[in-house]
Amino acid sequence: MKKPQLSHYNKAGTVSMVDVSAKAVTNRSATARAFVSMPPDVIAALPQNKKGDPLEIARIAGISAAKKTSELIPLCHQLPLSHVAVEFRQDKAGIEITVSARTVAQTGVEMEAMTAAAVAALTIYDMTKALNKAIEIREIHLVEKTGGKSGTFRRKSAK
Amino acid sequence: MKKPQLSHYNKAGTVSMVDVSAKAVTNRSATARAFVSMPPDVIAALPQNKKGDPLEIARIAGISAAKKTSELIPLCHQLPLSHVAVEFRQDKAGIEITVSARTVAQTGVEMEAMTAAAVAALTIYDMTKALNKAIEIREIHLVEKTGGKSGTFRRKSAK
Amino acid sequence: MKKPQLSHYNKAGTVSMVDVSAKAVTNRSATARAFVSMPPDVIAALPQNKKGDPLEIARIAGISAAKKTSELIPLCHQLPLSHVAVEFRQDKAGIEITVSARTVAQTGVEMEAMTAAAVAALTIYDMTKALNKAIEIREIHLVEKTGGKSGTFRRKSAK
Amino acid sequence: MKKPQLSHYNKAGTVSMVDVSAKAVTNRSATARAFVSMPPDVIAALPQNKKGDPLEIARIAGISAAKKTSELIPLCHQLPLSHVAVEFRQDKAGIEITVSARTVAQTGVEMEAMTAAAVAALTIYDMTKALNKAIEIREIHLVEKTGGKSGTFRRKSAK
Amino acid sequence: MKKPQLSHYNKAGTVSMVDVSAKAVTNRSATARAFVSMPPDVIAALPQNKKGDPLEIARIAGISAAKKTSELIPLCHQLPLSHVAVEFRQDKAGIEITVSARTVAQTGVEMEAMTAAAVAALTIYDMTKALNKAIEIREIHLVEKTGGKSGTFRRKSAK
Amino acid sequence: MKKPQLSHYNKAGTVSMVDVSAKAVTNRSATARAFVSMPPDVIAALPQNKKGDPLEIARIAGISAAKKTSELIPLCHQLPLSHVAVEFRQDKAGIEITVSARTVAQTGVEMEAMTAAAVAALTIYDMTKALNKAIEIREIHLVEKTGGKSGTFRRKSAK
Repeated sequence: MKKPQLSHYNKAGTVSMVDVSAKAVTNRSATARAFVSMPPDVIAALPQNKKGDPLEIARIAGISAAKKTSELIPLCHQLPLSHVAVEFRQDKAGIEITVSARTVAQTGVEMEAMTAAAVAALTIYDMTKALNKAIEIREIHLVEKTGGKSGTFRRKSAK
Repeated sequence: MKKPQLSHYNKAGTVSMVDVSAKAVTNRSATARAFVSMPPDVIAALPQNKKGDPLEIARIAGISAAKKTSELIPLCHQLPLSHVAVEFRQDKAGIEITVSARTVAQTGVEMEAMTAAAVAALTIYDMTKALNKAIEIREIHLVEKTGGKSGTFRRKSAK
Repeated sequence: MKKPQLSHYNKAGTVSMVDVSAKAVTNRSATARAFVSMPPDVIAALPQNKKGDPLEIARIAGISAAKKTSELIPLCHQLPLSHVAVEFRQDKAGIEITVSARTVAQTGVEMEAMTAAAVAALTIYDMTKALNKAIEIREIHLVEKTGGKSGTFRRKSAK
Repeated sequence: MKKPQLSHYNKAGTVSMVDVSAKAVTNRSATARAFVSMPPDVIAALPQNKKGDPLEIARIAGISAAKKTSELIPLCHQLPLSHVAVEFRQDKAGIEITVSARTVAQTGVEMEAMTAAAVAALTIYDMTKALNKAIEIREIHLVEKTGGKSGTFRRKSAK
Repeated sequence: MKKPQLSHYNKAGTVSMVDVSAKAVTNRSATARAFVSMPPDVIAALPQNKKGDPLEIARIAGISAAKKTSELIPLCHQLPLSHVAVEFRQDKAGIEITVSARTVAQTGVEMEAMTAAAVAALTIYDMTKALNKAIEIREIHLVEKTGGKSGTFRRKSAK
Repeated sequence: MKKPQLSHYNKAGTVSMVDVSAKAVTNRSATARAFVSMPPDVIAALPQNKKGDPLEIARIAGISAAKKTSELIPLCHQLPLSHVAVEFRQDKAGIEITVSARTVAQTGVEMEAMTAAAVAALTIYDMTKALNKAIEIREIHLVEKTGGKSGTFRRKSAK
């Protein structure tokens, strides 16, 4: 069995954008999640805004960031994303962000989903930070991926 | 006393890139921190690489991301950063990332430090994810800020 | 018959970058047009420039902008453009800009053609604005599109 | 009196990003306007969307585009914008977009306001185009500018 | 035989991003080389750095630049690169940079390899320029290309 | 006397975007030069083009690249350029490119001038490469810089 290795390194120990030209073009998806923890008073303030819900702005920021992933993560391949969705679930402790990304390509979209989740979380932080300094981003993790040679992964327990 | 409000909203409840043209140009700094948790085998694998330390690549990704903050966070002002440093501390549970950013401008650099920390963490995740699916980003938070009208903030306890 | 709907919204009324992964990869083209109206003295000044025709700079700006469309329009998919041409026709009232774009992809290039036309028009405005404040961009519209499930559209009357 | 000239050209007739290093750093503002014409059924459909108002997405796209102006318009200087606001007024014929931009710099922000207005209009077009092919962008023009050596300009009549 | 022509021009003598929609999607590769000449004392200083080898930073800069080629070179098509590697060979006169790029697309990757080589060279220059003003970039050239209608090219003699 | 050191490294040997917040804001300029060598038949072909001189496109590409320098060179500070000019001189052996850049800032513009020269050269290569494979970029070097603590530098002999 091939031993797992650091990604993006060749046998000589040098990084490169690894050669995927011989890999199959397949449907690939990934889901990532982030959590922005907030004190109750911040959560209460969110829906009081008449126009321009902070979560809608975070959604747009997340989708836009997914498209910029290969500019942000040095060894990521450029991918034509065929789908990106950013969803929010608000509970007593904060906002859970779930990003789904999909492509038809030679590499997977895990980093696109993770990057979108991180930037959506940063945007929520930016829009609420004046309310309370206790707001923090907790947990950014991959929930699931499908497609490609390594097949399907599902994280054992959601947070 | 002025009640804290969602950032970037005007009195009509509409978002804008808020007017800072009357604010003083002062020295401003911010420090943010992120933590990438990793199982012991991943941590052990990190220094085994001959050339191209994954952390050095994450450092470059973080510095580059700091310069892109206003492209990623919709309502952030463009800032000429006068300093960005990304430092790493490795312990048994993973890698702690600390980003310091500094500017001489009309607004602060909290989002630049937070964004750099997030992208450095995403890059470490990208370079190690093949080793173990349990790697996760935990905690992205502001440690300190100085300068500007709201003055100095120091987070009470580091994680 | 399916009722027309706002683009990019799912059934829950949430925006996303819609899933095109099941759509066919086909040849798609679009043509868009913009018009920059100018007083006669500005039009007369255009060809007097020895080197560096303002229209040639606008052509380059339009082509470059077509490639940036998915960074500018939040819910646009990334597309590998296989052709972009920007043509000009000068008449007594100003400059007519016609952009043709083409791709082999799962979605159309209407927004790429429209964006290139708008940025070419903005560039002409930028290069001539010192001559006369009456210069304005009038009309940016889609002339034609081909390919994809919705087939061919041709605008009834050119301006 | 100095005869008006094409912008960005030097005496040899060559374009450059003109030297502003000797100009004063002053407060400068600009207001630009665009109009997206729409049939009544499209206008009626706009507020029916539960989450994610198309105009809010256009507002974010416009603000983001203002920050990208110097990447889109070849001879524009890079400017740290101190304020950008995008406002909408809906009437029976469509949506009027008004952008205000402000900086403290050596050059003006006319192109930033014009670019934001154009991209906000393109985004509204993108979000509504499936409803009706008759939607068009009409009129992008400068309404007002203040600051700098050429002083204040106010357009004679709004459309 | 078709006479060679300036690239990117159509029959009317107008530039465009040329139409490649009828071209075959094939495996294409290119190799480019650049040379940064340095006095012996600069070369001697390179390996004295404990953390963060300047060449590793240049490697990341080169790979990132390859992905930005179509943003830098006005008439280049956007390409999904399937592989980019940047290698260094140090001799008494300086650092030789060799970039290999690969794609599966309708156009070639010569400009991607050339751009990566140029930006890697600029980065080495940036990191060493304080040591000695005699550092210069000499020679950026294409070494080889394969794939596409024009087939394989191999440069006759290396520098 | 302070011994020259690799740029961008701190005392611990770690790279950072170095802190310039205490440096004076002064007028700074830089001039860089590149040379694209071409066989006589390529040089002869250049002026035969009716519309859209390749050199004018290279000029725009160089100016645009100067504005992107801090996105390309990892440790470069963001600078508001107050002037960029790209000039060409054609001789029997090829095209000499001279770029002048200017800023009023806390750091110099050497890298901006060098980057613009490199990208203008790459663009000329891109536009002429179909004519002859012997075209190469030779020499990219700094000609002069003024301003800042290190004062004026003038390269001893132009090529």
